[in-house]
Order: sequence, then C-alpha cells, then structure tokens
Amino acid sequence: MIARKTLGFSGADLANILNEAALLAGRKRKAAVEMEDLDEAVDRIIAGLEKKNRVINPREKEIVAYNEAGHALVAAFTPGADEVHKISIIPRGIGALGYTQQLPTEDRYLMTRQELIGKIDVLLGGRMAENIVFGEISTGAHNDLHRATDIARAMVLEYGMGKTLGLSTYPRQNRPLFLSPEQSPLVGKECSEATAAKLDEEVKELIDERAAAVQELLSQNKALLEEIARELLQLEVMEAERFYEIIRGSATAQINLNAATVKSS
Amino acid sequence: MIARKTLGFSGADLANILNEAALLAGRKRKAAVEMEDLDEAVDRIIAGLEKKNRVINPREKEIVAYNEAGHALVAAFTPGADEVHKISIIPRGIGALGYTQQLPTEDRYLMTRQELIGKIDVLLGGRMAENIVFGEISTGAHNDLHRATDIARAMVLEYGMGKTLGLSTYPRQNRPLFLSPEQSPLVGKECSEATAAKLDEEVKELIDERAAAVQELLSQNKALLEEIARELLQLEVMEAERFYEIIRGSATAQINLNAATVKSS
Amino acid sequence: MIARKTLGFSGADLANILNEAALLAGRKRKAAVEMEDLDEAVDRIIAGLEKKNRVINPREKEIVAYNEAGHALVAAFTPGADEVHKISIIPRGIGALGYTQQLPTEDRYLMTRQELIGKIDVLLGGRMAENIVFGEISTGAHNDLHRATDIARAMVLEYGMGKTLGLSTYPRQNRPLFLSPEQSPLVGKECSEATAAKLDEEVKELIDERAAAVQELLSQNKALLEEIARELLQLEVMEAERFYEIIRGSATAQINLNAATVKSS
Amino acid sequence: MIARKTLGFSGADLANILNEAALLAGRKRKAAVEMEDLDEAVDRIIAGLEKKNRVINPREKEIVAYNEAGHALVAAFTPGADEVHKISIIPRGIGALGYTQQLPTEDRYLMTRQELIGKIDVLLGGRMAENIVFGEISTGAHNDLHRATDIARAMVLEYGMGKTLGLSTYPRQNRPLFLSPEQSPLVGKECSEATAAKLDEEVKELIDERAAAVQELLSQNKALLEEIARELLQLEVMEAERFYEIIRGSATAQINLNAATVKSS
Amino acid sequence: MIARKTLGFSGADLANILNEAALLAGRKRKAAVEMEDLDEAVDRIIAGLEKKNRVINPREKEIVAYNEAGHALVAAFTPGADEVHKISIIPRGIGALGYTQQLPTEDRYLMTRQELIGKIDVLLGGRMAENIVFGEISTGAHNDLHRATDIARAMVLEYGMGKTLGLSTYPRQNRPLFLSPEQSPLVGKECSEATAAKLDEEVKELIDERAAAVQELLSQNKALLEEIARELLQLEVMEAERFYEIIRGSATAQINLNAATVKSS
Amino acid sequence: MIARKTLGFSGADLANILNEAALLAGRKRKAAVEMEDLDEAVDRIIAGLEKKNRVINPREKEIVAYNEAGHALVAAFTPGADEVHKISIIPRGIGALGYTQQLPTEDRYLMTRQELIGKIDVLLGGRMAENIVFGEISTGAHNDLHRATDIARAMVLEYGMGKTLGLSTYPRQNRPLFLSPEQSPLVGKECSEATAAKLDEEVKELIDERAAAVQELLSQNKALLEEIARELLQLEVMEAERFYEIIRGSATAQINLNAATVKSS
Repeated sequence: MIARKTLGFSGADLANILNEAALLAGRKRKAAVEMEDLDEAVDRIIAGLEKKNRVINPREKEIVAYNEAGHALVAAFTPGADEVHKISIIPRGIGALGYTQQLPTEDRYLMTRQELIGKIDVLLGGRMAENIVFGEISTGAHNDLHRATDIARAMVLEYGMGKTLGLSTYPRQNRPLFLSPEQSPLVGKECSEATAAKLDEEVKELIDERAAAVQELLSQNKALLEEIARELLQLEVMEAERFYEIIRGSATAQINLNAATVKSS
Repeated sequence: MIARKTLGFSGADLANILNEAALLAGRKRKAAVEMEDLDEAVDRIIAGLEKKNRVINPREKEIVAYNEAGHALVAAFTPGADEVHKISIIPRGIGALGYTQQLPTEDRYLMTRQELIGKIDVLLGGRMAENIVFGEISTGAHNDLHRATDIARAMVLEYGMGKTLGLSTYPRQNRPLFLSPEQSPLVGKECSEATAAKLDEEVKELIDERAAAVQELLSQNKALLEEIARELLQLEVMEAERFYEIIRGSATAQINLNAATVKSS
Repeated sequence: MIARKTLGFSGADLANILNEAALLAGRKRKAAVEMEDLDEAVDRIIAGLEKKNRVINPREKEIVAYNEAGHALVAAFTPGADEVHKISIIPRGIGALGYTQQLPTEDRYLMTRQELIGKIDVLLGGRMAENIVFGEISTGAHNDLHRATDIARAMVLEYGMGKTLGLSTYPRQNRPLFLSPEQSPLVGKECSEATAAKLDEEVKELIDERAAAVQELLSQNKALLEEIARELLQLEVMEAERFYEIIRGSATAQINLNAATVKSS
Repeated sequence: MIARKTLGFSGADLANILNEAALLAGRKRKAAVEMEDLDEAVDRIIAGLEKKNRVINPREKEIVAYNEAGHALVAAFTPGADEVHKISIIPRGIGALGYTQQLPTEDRYLMTRQELIGKIDVLLGGRMAENIVFGEISTGAHNDLHRATDIARAMVLEYGMGKTLGLSTYPRQNRPLFLSPEQSPLVGKECSEATAAKLDEEVKELIDERAAAVQELLSQNKALLEEIARELLQLEVMEAERFYEIIRGSATAQINLNAATVKSS
Repeated sequence: MIARKTLGFSGADLANILNEAALLAGRKRKAAVEMEDLDEAVDRIIAGLEKKNRVINPREKEIVAYNEAGHALVAAFTPGADEVHKISIIPRGIGALGYTQQLPTEDRYLMTRQELIGKIDVLLGGRMAENIVFGEISTGAHNDLHRATDIARAMVLEYGMGKTLGLSTYPRQNRPLFLSPEQSPLVGKECSEATAAKLDEEVKELIDERAAAVQELLSQNKALLEEIARELLQLEVMEAERFYEIIRGSATAQINLNAATVKSS
Repeated sequence: MIARKTLGFSGADLANILNEAALLAGRKRKAAVEMEDLDEAVDRIIAGLEKKNRVINPREKEIVAYNEAGHALVAAFTPGADEVHKISIIPRGIGALGYTQQLPTEDRYLMTRQELIGKIDVLLGGRMAENIVFGEISTGAHNDLHRATDIARAMVLEYGMGKTLGLSTYPRQNRPLFLSPEQSPLVGKECSEATAAKLDEEVKELIDERAAAVQELLSQNKALLEEIARELLQLEVMEAERFYEIIRGSATAQINLNAATVKSS
C-alpha cells in the first residue's frame, strides 16, 4: 500500500516519510509505527501539513466538497484512470483546500491518448460538478483547468496527437518529459502566428469537448455526486473503501459505469 | 471589529497596529488604548498617514467625494459585496485622495463569478458616478479601471469564465494566485495574436457591459448618491452607521436594493 | 507669485532657488534679494542658464517666436488652461530655443478630459502657428508633438477616455502616475496587434482633430498672433501683463475668447 | 565491427570503451576481453547502463517492442538506410525504454535528400507500427517525432530542399552543422510570419506524407512486424543475424523489399 | 573660413585642430601655421588621414568621382543646401573613398521640411549620378542611402511631417535630437504592425519620389556632371572656387538653377 | 602571385604565411623557400591543414568534385568573376570537403550589381551541377546557399538594389560593411511584417532566377563539367593552367563563353 502511494519517490523521500511517521507515532507515545502513521506521513509530504484551524466558510466548504467529489466520481467512471485512494476537504499546506488522492497501480513510462484524455476528464470533474450543482462557477478549479490545458497542449504540440501539427512537433524546451504540468512553463511562440492561432483553437475545442462529456457523465450521476459530497462534508475525509461502497450501492452508477467503459474501450 | 478589518494580516502586521495604536493613545495622554486609536492605527497601516495639510481644490474634492460615494453605493446594492465600513476623502499617503473601506466578514479562499462581477461593479462605481453627476470624466478613476480590467482579464485567462478561451487557460506567471491586482504584471502575449485580439475585445465588452449596469444603478439612485456625496464633503469621513442610515432613510433605495438583489440571485 | 511658479517643488528645490536668487542679487551688489532675482532664479532652475551668446539665425528666431506665440495664444483662449506667465525666446540650457511659462493657480491631483484636451491644444499651438504663418513646417515642434501624443495615448490606454479600449485599460508600467510625459517610455505592445493598430489610428485621429481645431483658432486670430510674435522678436521676453494687454486690445480676440469659452463649457 | 559501431567516436571515447570492456571482462573473471564485452561496453557508452530491475508493465513493454520493431523494419526496407545491428527493449539509462541500433558502414559527410527522407521514415516507423497494431497511440514516440520534424525543418530551412524558401535559406544559428538533432534549438522566427506559416505547413505536409508511406509499408508487412515484435518480447534483445533471418524467411517481405527498392531508386 | 568648417566643434576639437595644423606646418619647416595647414588639419579630424598609397582601380575611382560629383551638383542646385566647400576622391581613414564637404554658413538649431528634403536629395545625388552615367549601380552609395532613409524615417516618425502618423509621433529613444543619422539605431517596432507597414511604404515612396526628382535634375545637367567628374579624376581634389566656376561657365546650368530655385521656393 | 592570393591580408597574416612556408621548406630540407611552399602555406592559412587521412566514400567524393567543378565553371563563364586559381577535393580543416580558390586581380572597395549577381551565380554553381548530373541533391551545398542568400538579402536590404525597399534601406547592425557573409548575423525583423514577407519573397525569387540561369549555363556545358569533375577525381587538385586548358579545348565552351559575355555586358 505504501509502495503504491509513493510511486516515483526517491530513496530519500521514503526515508523522509519513515522519519515523519516515527515522529508522529512518538508524539502519540506508541511503541511502534503503525499504518495510520505512515499514511499521515505520506499525506504530509505530498500535500503539506493539515491546517485544521483554517476556518473556511460553509459555502466555500461546500464548493470544495463538490469539486473533490467530481474529481473522484469521474476517476471512478473513467476506464484506465488511477484508482481513488482518499478524498479530503481538510485544508493542507498553502492554498490547498481539498484533494483527491489517486493511486497508480504501478510505475508508468508511457501514456496512451486515451489515458491522457482520462486525466483531462478527471481534472475537469471538479469544475463541471460545481457547474451542475450550483449553476454558478468559482475560481476554485483554476489550477485544474491549467493542468488540463497543459495536457491538451502537450498532446497537440509534443505527442503528435492533434490536427494542427499532425505528427510534426514543437517540443517545449526545458520541460521535464513526463507529465507534471503544474509548474511547467507555457509554450512560447516558436511556431508561426497562423499555427499558434489554430493551436489555441484546437486546444480550446478539445477541452470544451471533454468538458461536455464530463458534464454529461456527472449529470447522469448527480444523485451519486450529491451523496458523496454530502458525506464528505460530514466526514471531511473519505477513504477508498467507503467511496467505492457508495458507488457500488448505487443502481444507476453500475449502469453508467458500464456505459462509460463501453464508450471508451 | 479589529479582526474583521484586518483579515489576511500577519501576526507581525497586528503587532505593528497595536504598537501604532499605543503610540497614538500615548500622544493623547490616554491611560489606555481605545477603539478609536486602534481604528486610526489600522487606517495608517492600510492607506498611509493622513495628509490634512494637503490642499485640494474644491472641484477636485467634489470629484473625489462622488467617486467614493459611487463605490460605496454600488457596494451597498451589490449582493455578496463586502460591507462598507468607512468612506473618507481625507488625503492619505502618496496619491490617495480618498478611499472607501469595505469589511469582508471572513477570510475568503474562493470567489464565484458573481462575486468577481460584483468587485468589478464596485470599482466602476466611482467613474460612473462622476460621469452621471458631472457629465465629464477625469483621471481620478484610472486606478480603479486598471483593477477592474485586471479582474476581467483573470476571469477570461485564468478562471475559465470567458468565451475566448472557454475552459482552456493562459495562466499569468509570477502572479500571486488570489486577487490583489493593483501591482500585478500585465498578461504577456503567450497566446496567439488571433486569441489576444479576441481577448482584448471580450474584456472590453465585459467592462463596458458592467459599466452600463452600474450607470443604470447609480442613475436610479442619483438622489441618494448626491445626498451621500454632499454629506461626505462636509464630514470628510463617513462611518458605516451613518452611511447605511442614509440608505435606509431613502424610499427609492429600498426598492432598488430589492430589485438588485432579485436580479443577481 | 513665487508659490504659484513653484507648484510641486520640494523644500530642497525652494532652498535652491533662494540660494540662486541670493547669488544673483549679490552679483548685482544689491542690499536685498528682490522679486526679479527670485524670478530669474526660478527660470534658471526650470529651463537652465540663459545662453545669450548662442547665435541663432533670424529665420530660426522667427520660427521660435511664432511657436511660442502660438502656445501662448492657444493657452489664453483655452478655458481651464493655466495662465500664461512669461514668454521667452532667449535660448536656455541645452537645446531649448524658447519657452512659454504657464502658471498653474494651485496644486492639481486630477485632470478632466477637457483639461487634457486643453493641454494637447496648447502643445499643438506652436506647430500650427508655424504652419499658418510660414506655410512650411520645421523640426522645432517635435518635442511638443511627442508630449501631445503621449497625453493622447494616456487618455486612450490609461484613463478610459477612448473608443478602442473603452473603460478597459493597458496601463504603462514604470511610469509616474501624473502627467510629466517628456521622459516617459513609450507604451510597449502588451495589447494585441489588432488593438495596437486601432490605438495608433485613434491617437492619430485625436491629434489630427485637435490640430484642425487649433489651426482654426489661430487662423481666426492671425493678426493677434503676428502682433505678439513681432513684439516678442523685439523684446525677446514678454511678461504676462503685456501679453494679456495685447489680447485685450484686440477686438476680434474678445469675440473668439467668448466663442471658445462657450464651445467648451 | 567495433569500428563500424563507433563511427564518429573520438580517441578518448574508444579508450573509454576499452576500459569499460576490460572492467566487464574482469568482473566475469575472464582471462581476456572478448567481443561480447566490447559490445556491451559500446552499448553502455551510447545508451547508458541496463536497468533490468526497472519494472515496466506488459502493456508498455508491448508498445515499446512494436515501436522498436517498426523502426527496424522500416530501416530494413529503406534503400540506403544504415543496417540494423541490434534491437533491444531492455531499459537503459534515463528514460530510454528500448532502442534500435543501426550500423553506418562508413563515416559520412554529406546526406542526399533521399537519405534524409529515409531517416525520417525510420524515425516514424515506431509510431506508425503502434498505430497499425493497437489502433491507439502513446507518448512513446514523441522523441522520434521531434527528431523527424527537426530533419524536415532542416531540409526546408537550411538545405534548400523545400518549396517555401526554394534555394534561399534561413540557417539556424549556434547549431552544429551535421545531423544530431536531438538537442538542437528550435528555429527562431527570423523569417517573416508569412514565411513561417508556409514553413509550418510544408513541414507538416512532408511529415504527414512520409507517415502515410511508412504506414503503408508497415501495413503490407504487418505479419512480419508482429513476428519480430513477439520474438523481441521474449528475447528482449535481437541481434542483426536473427532480425535479417526472420525477414529473409518471409515471402511477402522479399516482395516488398524489392518494391521499396524500386520505388526509391 | 575655419569657423564655418568647424560649426558644432567643441573647444577641445578646435584645440586639437590647431595642434594638428602646427605639427603639419612644423613638418614642412614653416615659420608659421598657414591656412592650408589648418585646412588639412580639419580634413584629418573629420575624415581621417589621407590614404594616398591605397590603390583603387580606375573603374572604382570613376564610380567614386561620379558619386561625389553627383552629391556636389545636387547641393549646388538645391535651394538652402549648404555650400560646397571641397570635393575629394583621395581615400581617407577607414573605408571612405571620397567625400564632398559642404560648409554650413552658421550653426543651425532647426530644420524645415524643405531643408530635410534637400539633405535627402544631396545624399541621393551619388547613386543617381552612377545610375545615369553607367546604367549600372554599385554598393558605393549604400551609406548615403542609409542616411537618406534615416532622415525620411525621422520626418514621418518624429517630426510630424508624414501621412502615416500625421502629427502623432513615435520618437526613437536614446537618439540624439539633432540630425547625425549615421550611427543612429533603427526605429524599433513600438508602433503596431499595421502602422509599421504603412510607415515602410511611406518612407519608400518618399525616397523613390526624391530619387526620381534627383535623377531628372542630374539628367538635365549630365554634361556638367561629366565635366566635373572628369576634372575631379584628374585633380583628385576640387576646391569650391573651381567647382562653382565650372557651374557658372555652363549655359544650361544657369537655367536649371533658376528652375530648381523657382520650384522649391 | 602571392600578392594576388593574399589580397586583404594584414602584415601579420603575411608574416604568418612566410613563417609557415619556411617551416614547410625546412621539413623538406630545402635550402630555400620555394613557390610551392608559399602556395601550400597560403592554403593552410585559408582553408586549414590537409586531412589526407580523412576517408571519404567514393559517392561523396564524386558529389564534392561536381560541386567544385560547378563553382569553377560558372566562375569561368561569368564576366567580371575572379579568375579560378586552384580547385581541390582534398579535405582540409574542419568540415571543408573541397574548395575552389578564386584570385581577385586587385583589392576591391566597391561591387557593382552585376558583380554581386556573379558571386551568387558562382556560389549556386555547386548545387546546380549536383542537380544536373545526379538528378538528386545533397546537404553539400548548404553553406553556399547561405552565402548566396546573404548576398541577395544585402542587395535588397542594404544596397538599394531591390524592389521591396527601393532605395530605402534596413542596414543590418554590427555587420562589417564589405562582403564576408559566412559569419554574418541574419537580418532581424526591424522592418514591418508586411515588408519582411515581401523581402522573403523577393530574395527567394532572385535566388530562384539565378539558379535557373546557372542551371541553363551548366546544362549547356555538361560535357565540360563532367570532363573537369572526372579529372579532378583523379588528380584531387587542379591548377588554373590545366583548368583553363580544358575549357579552351572545348568547342562549345568558347561559344557559351562569348554568349555569356555578350549577355551580361
């Protein structure tokens, strides 16, 4: 379990986590480090310290809960998407109001077009949930939108998966090859203005098309979305078992799940 | 009260304010720091020292008063806008001829589209008041216009709230995430010229549309606007109680207030 | 009088002027500093040392005289423009062949659209006078044209007073807020090419329109313009009293003055 | 054999390889350095250390195998392409999941248009194989696409082999003359936008045209492609002898080989 | 005479010239510095040392002679152009193959449009003479073309003398105000592309129009042009007296001179 | 002879050559430096050390021979082109596979349009020869294409010899005035995009037009081209005497030579 949560971690990262877990266990005067200490240690390394005393107003808390429920639900219905491990709306670190942790089942070196589309869908899940439930949108999803746009640009510019450039590429320089798009620089304008204009258009269309698909998926599962968000508002943290339990308990979800699987395979 | 006026202040800022208040109380040979000392200390930290000996001609004073009355009145009629705490036309610090202090009721981490529009409206309130009352405009509102434009750009470029980019984004780099747009750098031209042209057009249209809405709101409440501005010219500082008292005393305002509330909810 | 000539001067500037005046009075072996010493001291600080031994050919001297007469006359006929204090065609400092000194009546913090237009008109007065009288133009007005263009750009880009951007803005960075446009950097091209093209067009049209208005004003007062310029060529310096005396002595001027006042109020 | 594998190597590189081979032989307690030690030493220098303990999932392993089989097969069918020496899907160094080693038969100083096209074809072989076999594409070929695009750009911009510029050129500065395109900077936009737009179009069309040709070639040899990929999945490394043995054993391949030779001569 | 040749020289420059003249007189063992020593000293300062041992082939020498004769003749026929003082085809300094020295009659602080056009005409005189006489052109005039273009650009961009910008300006930064265009930086592209395109067109048209006028002027005086060039080839240096003597001796020149004077007044 | 081969060399360069020649003579244990030593010394300074042990494959050797034969033949048939002194296909220095040495007959300070065109033609001779003989092109001519393009650009941008700019110029900064284009920076885009687009077009057309003319010239002298290339492949170095002997021995060449002379005079 720890191994799956820490894919891509260096030896030093792992040592760091064990250290942290030992400290946590020590503080609770345990004789040994337990699984929950390790789990909390991983969360601290990934998302920062819990900020339980950060007071967030109920309306914002609700927006956050629906954003996270949206991400998680899309992940559950997207074939090939990494499994949901934990959903949390306890603020952590700087600026993070909530997060949905997905567990990759193994180290990955390649991504198929379908998997990249799946990543975009999961990222768009937060905003679309907000849109459906509140009929109003907030700044809460802006980081997700940036990441989704970044993947869409990489598909067209670097991976030869778009119409504008076909198989010709404009690789972005000084950018780590694999996908960690949060901090990546925007593509400069090495290509011509004419190409850049088509590119902007193609990326916008791809994102819009995925947003529509995600909107439909979540609309069809609105009851489930609300059930998860409501419970999340009470619990603040939802583990994988409970999350999948709710989904399995839903008659409609089963149907949609199959439909989605069929659609994308 | 102090807590609400100092949302987002660091511990050091608060220490600073208490120090300042103690000095102010000391200068007046008081035995203890009183609320008015704390209030003045907060104003000094936010807007700089009062410059009472700065002589401003009556015409400019009048323009400033109508600008501030415009901001305050739009804030009062905009659902979700922060409450007006104080309006002042005593010059402070460098270049500030007047200011309208709004009190957020709590720390905020997200902003809805409606709230961002509300912020734009309040910012445009000064210029539109000037326009309605004098039929002539001045450079006095240029900083407000910059801030309103900045919010509009962020909505389209970063928050996925516009038509030009849809949900795809062009986040501005090196820019603090949350809204403190006064000092923020302009968006560079990472996007294509075609997109940049559409963007300029969309931002202009959004600002124009909000200006028209604010113009209508203030036109309908012109009597109230003039009452507040006239009293502000006499008092130089108007506290929240008096401000809301005037509004509540106005028959037309009640009607407009409801209308506005209805319109935006 | 000294206070009005030195609006915006710092305490150090004022000390500087008094020092200079004392030196001037001392050189003339006066027992006390007199008004004329203070006046000369202010001129030295603003425009540099007189360069009486700089030989300028009569044709150029004539061009300079008509440029200055043009500025002064437009100022006299522009409602709200600062009063003319002195006109000089004695070269001063580096490159200044003549200057028209206007006296603001007070410190100013805001400028209305009408006042900005008035500033443009006064700046264009020199070139248009040259044009009318000689039917030929020179490089003499190029600094005035730069300043007039700069004000026009600021109106459209920063003050929300144009059609291209409406109330949206593209503030120029690293530029002092208030108007001292001589040394200000040109606007970069943060906006889109499409917007920049419209902007160039709008600024050109505004300047062209003002130039036509100024040309008409000066054409109607050509006799007065020539009278002032001719006397200026003889005297080299014309004080406010004499300047307004000539204007008041002109029948046509009275008419135009009123007409202009009516037009702009 | 070693000489052919190390064309373009410096004396220091060769010394390095012999050193490495001696170490490898020593570790195996051999009395003398044998050919296999030299071979492994060359691979280590070119592609980095074998990362046998890097666990790659079967699906990715399959994608890698088809990519490499695609490169090798296109190389075998492209007249003038360097001979295939070894195909490997053992991960090496940082990020390399597999590689196809081609042996140039001699040092080269010039490249004909036909040979450059051949290089593009071999590079596209991986992606097209993936496309044909899985009907889905991955990020695995993105480095090949970059290199192919780079050659196509060089043909049009630097070698006078395109339509957009004819024999006029826009050489890319600070770029080593001969082809080692992996690390080369993108062409800046010294040329006009109109030319850059045509250039983007021409490069895209050239790559698209070659992709179609390679797709056809591999489709016609799909059985062979699958045979090589399947065996490669088992062996992990395939030497030249076995590779050409499989090809010679295939009836259809002989036919295609001739056809291809005829087509390009 | 020395004063007129050294307009704009600093005191240090003048001291330099006298020093140089004393050295030249000393080398010739004269008891006193004579006018010819001063004259040669000025030439050395302005154009560098004579390079009499630089061998230039007769064809190039002829091209140079016609270039200089062209400059001088256009200067003689252009009303308001500075008087020709000396024409030389002895190479001097680095790269200068010949030069035509004009003597301004006084320090100048302004230039009229007509005078700027005159400067362009004189600069174009060299190339047009070459064109008329040889029916072939050389690189010899490229520096003159640069200077003429620079004046034309300044007229349109800085002096409000063009159609593209009218009286609005795009002053070139970091550029000395008065005309010394040889070393001045090209205008950047602060203006919009649309304006820049119109600007390029307007400058080209202005230069083309002047080139046609100069071509016509020199064609009408071809006999005179050839007489001057031929004598210059023999003498290598032609003083003002001889130059104007030849012109006055020509019947056609008198006519053209008048015509030209009439045309431009 | 040495003087003609070393036009433009500094005194230090000449001292360098004599030193090198003395060393060469010494190595051969000669009593005195002979002409062949001086000749080799000049070659070493210009093109680098001979790299006789660099093994070039026969196909590439043939391409190189035809490239050099093409340059030399075009030079021989181009009126005003510098005389051919030596043709070599022995690799020298870094990257040079062959070279054709032309001997200017004197120092030059100016170039006529015709001479610049001649330089372009000689540069294009290599590629066109390759094209005619092999019906296939290589990267071998890319440096020649760069130099030819550079001259064509200079003609249009700097020398007032093109249609796009007419006599107006866009001089390239920081670029030595006379023609040594190998290392010169590309022109930046100081001009407008519209002008840059026309410029790209004009340069392409000029190069295309010259390429067609050179193709025709070489096609008419294909027998001669092949004779020279074949002998060059045997000898590796061909001196001027032998080169012109072959040309004079060809009946067709005489005819073409005259025709070419007639055409360009």
